Amino acid sequence: MAFSERVSRLKSSLIREILAAAQRPQVMSFAGGLPAEAMLPNVDWSDMPVTLGQYGMSEGEPALREMLAAEARALGLPCSASQVLVVSGSQQTLDLAAKLYIDKGTQILLEAPTYLAALQIFQLFGADCLTVPLEADGPDLGQLRQRLERHRPAFIYLIPTFQNPSAVRYSEAKREAVAALLDEFGVTLIEDEPYRELTFDGGSARPIAGRLKKSSWIYTGTVSKTLLPGLRVGYLIASPDLFPHLLKLKQSADLHTNRIGQWQALQWIGSERYQAHLTQLRSFYRQRRDAFQSALERHFSDLADWNVPQGGLFFWLTLKRPLDTRTLLDAALADDVAFMPGEPFFPEPDRNPGHLRLNFSHIDPDRLEEGIRRLAVVVRRAQADKAA
Amino acid sequence: MAFSERVSRLKSSLIREILAAAQRPQVMSFAGGLPAEAMLPNVDWSDMPVTLGQYGMSEGEPALREMLAAEARALGLPCSASQVLVVSGSQQTLDLAAKLYIDKGTQILLEAPTYLAALQIFQLFGADCLTVPLEADGPDLGQLRQRLERHRPAFIYLIPTFQNPSAVRYSEAKREAVAALLDEFGVTLIEDEPYRELTFDGGSARPIAGRLKKSSWIYTGTVSKTLLPGLRVGYLIASPDLFPHLLKLKQSADLHTNRIGQWQALQWIGSERYQAHLTQLRSFYRQRRDAFQSALERHFSDLADWNVPQGGLFFWLTLKRPLDTRTLLDAALADDVAFMPGEPFFPEPDRNPGHLRLNFSHIDPDRLEEGIRRLAVVVRRAQADKAA
Repeated sequence: MAFSERVSRLKSSLIREILAAAQRPQVMSFAGGLPAEAMLPNVDWSDMPVTLGQYGMSEGEPALREMLAAEARALGLPCSASQVLVVSGSQQTLDLAAKLYIDKGTQILLEAPTYLAALQIFQLFGADCLTVPLEADGPDLGQLRQRLERHRPAFIYLIPTFQNPSAVRYSEAKREAVAALLDEFGVTLIEDEPYRELTFDGGSARPIAGRLKKSSWIYTGTVSKTLLPGLRVGYLIASPDLFPHLLKLKQSADLHTNRIGQWQALQWIGSERYQAHLTQLRSFYRQRRDAFQSALERHFSDLADWNVPQGGLFFWLTLKRPLDTRTLLDAALADDVAFMPGEPFFPEPDRNPGHLRLNFSHIDPDRLEEGIRRLAVVVRRAQADKAA
Repeated sequence: MAFSERVSRLKSSLIREILAAAQRPQVMSFAGGLPAEAMLPNVDWSDMPVTLGQYGMSEGEPALREMLAAEARALGLPCSASQVLVVSGSQQTLDLAAKLYIDKGTQILLEAPTYLAALQIFQLFGADCLTVPLEADGPDLGQLRQRLERHRPAFIYLIPTFQNPSAVRYSEAKREAVAALLDEFGVTLIEDEPYRELTFDGGSARPIAGRLKKSSWIYTGTVSKTLLPGLRVGYLIASPDLFPHLLKLKQSADLHTNRIGQWQALQWIGSERYQAHLTQLRSFYRQRRDAFQSALERHFSDLADWNVPQGGLFFWLTLKRPLDTRTLLDAALADDVAFMPGEPFFPEPDRNPGHLRLNFSHIDPDRLEEGIRRLAVVVRRAQADKAA
């Protein structure tokens, strides 16, 4: 069997195994990043034109592209509809970006930690992954400058708003500083913002892409966290120099994004009904965040440190006494608790032990306390074993 | 700007330009491969469960996978649901196969001519494209054996039923012979069957994948030609050795295929209503094929040779006096007629002049005669100019 060289870099299915195990109904899962079922809006399909069953344009539906461009401009990202490409979920943006930029050995720059599925696809294409550490308000600027002075990464991949996994939101000052550095060194920005709308304190900041004066950029978002992930509708907006290449890559990947999901997204985006839904969603998740924070304080305050997330879907715990959290999985699953170990969110997992990513949006609050309690017991037991 | 090496192989947008030009309402287009709008079925969404808005499995919806496996077994392709992967249109199968097999310089084997978009994505990944010529009943077996004796292609890509562009349907004997050769040389088969159900004489033959005894295989199909292309729902079925890799590649490409399209597809596949729709569709396209054949006989009988297609969506014309049909495009479009030049369907376009691919399913019959007449005039004029 002669597969491509890239297949040797296809990652083990650890994450798939966790998520599969978390499907068992008795499991209390903090592992995934699923929206709460209760908050999936009822959608109406009765007015959808039958002509949407026909093939569509690779760029996406014109009306949706106009609406997405208008929304982006309102956020402070100057752009026109001609720069908007509708994609099959923002995961596809990462696939297209990998194809556009990455040969074997191509250097790219990532936050540490970073989004696991991004890391996997960039590595699949053979990227050499450099990292810059995240602080509570964004990247360590000194280290970012140092990386840019020493390397010529093909792009930097950032998730500046409620990052997955760390929940970090960049400060205004760091957004400005990062944009200035990227312009200074002429580095392309890929800015991924699936969680922007899930803000609990009302904060909103201009995208970094909107602050660039010279560098090329791709900004990507999705309706998966705010409307319905099952639609598989996301989008990217790109600087005009990149757009034609991304369009051709999109066409060769899947011709175009499904039009029924695009139509449904257009019924919501920019509407008052969508704003009302987002308000409800934020309030719902804020309450779940608060309940989660209380449970963590009761069971984890002596075991870990964390920042209270101001948006998004995750708590990121740092154990006071680090251990490889992957070794906790079997015990946790045996106790019907699932979580996501932190190590795989780093290009060098073994050098970054001691973090746990806990999703707070999905679990039923009635089972939350018991789940957190059991997880704390698993950690305590492992640390006692290690000390013994 | 440092793009990946692969971007240098992104093809020019000739095809996009033709299809864009063909959008003008006054243009009589034989260029695309669009189903007839009149035959898009009315679909009902009112019973779709709201839970389908949630994230789904990368494999696809379990009930749909079961149904697709049952249909494939009925065709003579032994398989279980665990071998079925739902994809975002069968174009995505080509993307996943390219990722699985192709490094720069990897040899693969294709029919000549072959499906344009397959050629493009295989070349994008850097494939070295070997070809075997098609005859009226399938590939030239002598040349196929010769290629397999001299080379070790990573896979062979075949469209055995109503091929795009040539409309060739493999005979029973050639299906058997091809399967035997692939087993003899241990070459993986990728079998693409978007047009299988669009048969005008009722003929149906067992897939080649179902005849293999040893070789690995990927069989791929879609609902785009029989139900609604806008759903972007296709599928692949793979031998068990390939499936886990394809699943991981699917997950990294777009997590999973949109669930609303999958749900709609499941409402049709295997149902009596679907059979009735297919019967209508075949009859409708057969009539269009007949009208097209009449018009061709009136205007092209002295200019070109062709076989009458027994299924699919295309006539494939071979000019009696070959010329580069790409040079006809400007004149045709100036006369408001669009067609697809044959050259880009070959890995070596310049060495394969003189074919035209004409779609017969989409154009309104009232405009057909005038369109064919104008196209014949364009060809005649070019041949006169060449002779002069």
